[in-house]
Amino acid sequence: MQIWHPFTQHGLNEDIIEIETSDKEFLITKDGAKIIDGISSWWVNTLGHKNPIIAKAIEDEAKKLHQIIFAGFVHKPAKCAAENLSKFLPKDYTHIFFSDSGSTSVEVALKMAVGYHYNKGQNRSKIVAMEHSYHGDTFGGMSSGARSVFNEPYTKMLFEVERIPYPKEGEEERTIKAYKKLLEKEGNKIGAIILEPLVLGSGGMFFYKPFVIDELYKLSKEYGVIFALDEVMTGFGRVGTMFAFNQTNIIPDIICLSKGLTGGSIPLAATVSTKEIYDAYLSKDKAKMFFHSSSYTANPIACAAANANLEIWQNTDVLADVKRVNDFYYTQLERFKHLPAKNVRILGDIFAFDVEKSGNDYVSNIGIKLYDYYRKNNILLRPLGNTVYVMPPYCISNESLIRVFDVIEKSLKECL
Amino acid sequence: MQIWHPFTQHGLNEDIIEIETSDKEFLITKDGAKIIDGISSWWVNTLGHKNPIIAKAIEDEAKKLHQIIFAGFVHKPAKCAAENLSKFLPKDYTHIFFSDSGSTSVEVALKMAVGYHYNKGQNRSKIVAMEHSYHGDTFGGMSSGARSVFNEPYTKMLFEVERIPYPKEGEEERTIKAYKKLLEKEGNKIGAIILEPLVLGSGGMFFYKPFVIDELYKLSKEYGVIFALDEVMTGFGRVGTMFAFNQTNIIPDIICLSKGLTGGSIPLAATVSTKEIYDAYLSKDKAKMFFHSSSYTANPIACAAANANLEIWQNTDVLADVKRVNDFYYTQLERFKHLPAKNVRILGDIFAFDVEKSGNDYVSNIGIKLYDYYRKNNILLRPLGNTVYVMPPYCISNESLIRVFDVIEKSLKECL
Repeated sequence: MQIWHPFTQHGLNEDIIEIETSDKEFLITKDGAKIIDGISSWWVNTLGHKNPIIAKAIEDEAKKLHQIIFAGFVHKPAKCAAENLSKFLPKDYTHIFFSDSGSTSVEVALKMAVGYHYNKGQNRSKIVAMEHSYHGDTFGGMSSGARSVFNEPYTKMLFEVERIPYPKEGEEERTIKAYKKLLEKEGNKIGAIILEPLVLGSGGMFFYKPFVIDELYKLSKEYGVIFALDEVMTGFGRVGTMFAFNQTNIIPDIICLSKGLTGGSIPLAATVSTKEIYDAYLSKDKAKMFFHSSSYTANPIACAAANANLEIWQNTDVLADVKRVNDFYYTQLERFKHLPAKNVRILGDIFAFDVEKSGNDYVSNIGIKLYDYYRKNNILLRPLGNTVYVMPPYCISNESLIRVFDVIEKSLKECL
Repeated sequence: MQIWHPFTQHGLNEDIIEIETSDKEFLITKDGAKIIDGISSWWVNTLGHKNPIIAKAIEDEAKKLHQIIFAGFVHKPAKCAAENLSKFLPKDYTHIFFSDSGSTSVEVALKMAVGYHYNKGQNRSKIVAMEHSYHGDTFGGMSSGARSVFNEPYTKMLFEVERIPYPKEGEEERTIKAYKKLLEKEGNKIGAIILEPLVLGSGGMFFYKPFVIDELYKLSKEYGVIFALDEVMTGFGRVGTMFAFNQTNIIPDIICLSKGLTGGSIPLAATVSTKEIYDAYLSKDKAKMFFHSSSYTANPIACAAANANLEIWQNTDVLADVKRVNDFYYTQLERFKHLPAKNVRILGDIFAFDVEKSGNDYVSNIGIKLYDYYRKNNILLRPLGNTVYVMPPYCISNESLIRVFDVIEKSLKECL
C-alpha cells in the first residue's frame, strides 16, 4: 500500500523526501542532509523540531495514561492544560473544549456559536467569513473558507456563507461597511462571524490591521453575532504576540487553537469560549447539551505535550525569539528593493512577498519552480501561487535565516 | 478555565471522575478504585488500556521524530504503517490517506468519492446513508449521520443525504429495494454510499446481516457509485473479524479507520482506497489533486503507535480474545430470559439489549438511571437511550465479564 499525500499531485512524480529525524529548524534526511524548515512544517511547529522538554513529556505520559473516555471522566493532563492555557488568556475565557486538529477546532466553534443561538430559541445558522479565508478542509471548514479550486468539487455540499471583502490596507472601510450592511439586512439570521485574525494564511498571506477586528467585533456585539477567531495559525507567537487578538482591543467570544498548542509535536486542538456561550448550554435539559465529540478528545499524551509547551512559554521568553526573527526580516528589506518582488510584508515570524509578473493562482508555475529550487538548496518553502513566504520555527539561527534569504535572492534571479 | 466535556450536560452536575492511570480493562482513580471500562472508552480501546508495547513505541518515537510536513516529505513510521496495515487488507487497497480522527476519516472518504467523479467530469455529489447511522460530529459526518437531537441546531448547514432504511432482520429486502429505486431515479447524481457495516453504533447498536452489504455493493457497482464503509467502530476486531467487511463477499472502494488503529492510544485515522479512486486524481494537472490535509497528518508518533498495534495483531491471536468474550456472551443468554430485556443480540465483542417498557430516545431517563447505577458499581456502561450494550477491551478477564453481567442483572431488578 502506498501513501496518498495531502495536497499532492502524485501524477507529477515529485520526489518525496524521507525524513529520519529533526532538530530545531532542521528536517534531517537519512543521508544526513539538513533541510531548513522555512515554513515550520506547514505552520505547525513553533519552538523548533523535537523540542526535548515536549519529547520528555510525551514519553512520561505514555507510561501513565493513554486515551480514555472524556464524558463523565477527566484526567490530570487535561485539567493542567486548561489551567496552563488560562494563564495566557483573559479571565473572560471560562471553558475549553478539546478536539484533534485545526479543522475540528473550527467545526466546534461554528457548532458552539449556532447552538448558542438555538438554545436561546433563535435560528441563526448563517455564518459570515472573509474573502480569501481558509479554515480547514473538513466540510464546515471548507464552507467557511473561500471557494476555490480546493473545494470546487464539493460546492453543492457546502453551506452558504456570507462574505465580507478582505480589508486591504486603505480599504478597511469597505469591509466594515459591507459587514454593517449585511447585519442591517439580516443580522438576526447571522449566528457567527469567523476570521483568521491579522493574516489570511492559505489565501496568500494577506495581512490586515487590528483595528478592523475591533470594528467588526463592535458591530457583531450590536447584533448579537458570535465573534470567533481562528487562531490555528496565528496562535502561539506566530504574529509577534502570544495570540493575534492580543494586538486588538477586543476579547473574541471563541478562539480556535491547534498547531502551536503542542508546539507542533502531536495532534491536539482546543476551542476556547466565554461563559456567555457555555451558559447557553447549561440546563437541566439534556437536549441542550453540546452534542460533539471525537474518538480521541483530550488525549492525555497530547495534553501532556501541550502542558510542556505551555511551561516553556511560562518559563522562557519565547516572544524574544520571534522578535529576533522579526528584526532580522527588517534588515532584509533593502535587498528586496532590487528584486522582482512586490508587497514585501512582515508580521511577527512571517515574511512574505509576491513575485512580480506571474499569475497568482495556487497552481501557478512560478510557485512550483521556486519550490523545486528551494528544495534543491535544502530549504523548505512552499510558495502559495506567486506569493513566497518565510515562517520558520522561532529558534531558527541567524545563520539559517541568512541562508534562506540568500537562496531567495538567488531564486528570484535564476528562476524567473 | 474549566473543561467543557463532550456530550455532557454540565447543568446536571454529574460527578466527573478523575482517572489517574489505566491498565487492561480498568480505569483507575486517584483513590485506587478500579472501574471496569465496559465500552472500551467509547469504542476506542481494543487491546486493553495502556498496552505496554504501544506505550514503548510512543516513547521511542518521541525521541526520534515529531510532526513534520507530509506534502513532499515522508517518514518511516508512516511508510511502515501503510505496509503493516496492508498485511491485513486485500491487495485491492493501494493507497492510504492519513488524518486524525474517525470524523475526519469519513470527511476524507466523502471528499475522495465526490472528487473521483468530479475528476471524471461528473457532478455526483449526492450521498446515500442509512437511517439511524452515525458518522461523526463534523459537518460532513453530521450530514451523513441520521438527523436527530444531536444535530438539530445545524439542520440548515447540513448537505442533503438520501436515506435507505435500516435493514432490520426480515426486512432486508425493503432496504435493498429502496436503494435500487433511488439509483434508478437518480443514480447518475449519486457519488457515494457510506455505511457503518453490520452494526449501527450510536443509532442504538442495531445489527444487520452481511448479505445486505453484498447486495448494496452490487447495486452500487451497477450505477458507478463509490461504496465506502465507515469501519471506525467496527474495525480491528470489534465484530469478530479484523474488519467488518471480512464477513461480506465484497471489497469496498473506501474504508475509514481510526479508533483501533493505534489500539486506542493516541489520535490517528486513515482512509484507505482502491487504485481506481486514486487513479482518478493522478494527472499532470495540479487542479486534479486531492485537496485535503490537516495540521497533524500522519503524525510520526501516532504512526509508531499504529505500527506497534499492528505488530501485536501480527504476532498474537487477538481475535481469539474476541472469540473468548463472544463465547462468554452466549453463556449469559439464559439469564436474560428472565429479565426485562428484549432484542438481546451478540456480534463479536458487542453484547446489546433493549430495556423493556421505556422510551427509546437518547436522553431517556432509564438510560441515565442505569448509567448512574453502573458508575456506583465501578462499571462504565453508557446506555444509548434504553439500549444497554457491553463492548469491552478484548483482554477483559472472565472475572470482570461476570462482574459486569451480574451488575447488569441487578440493575434491571433495582432500577426499573
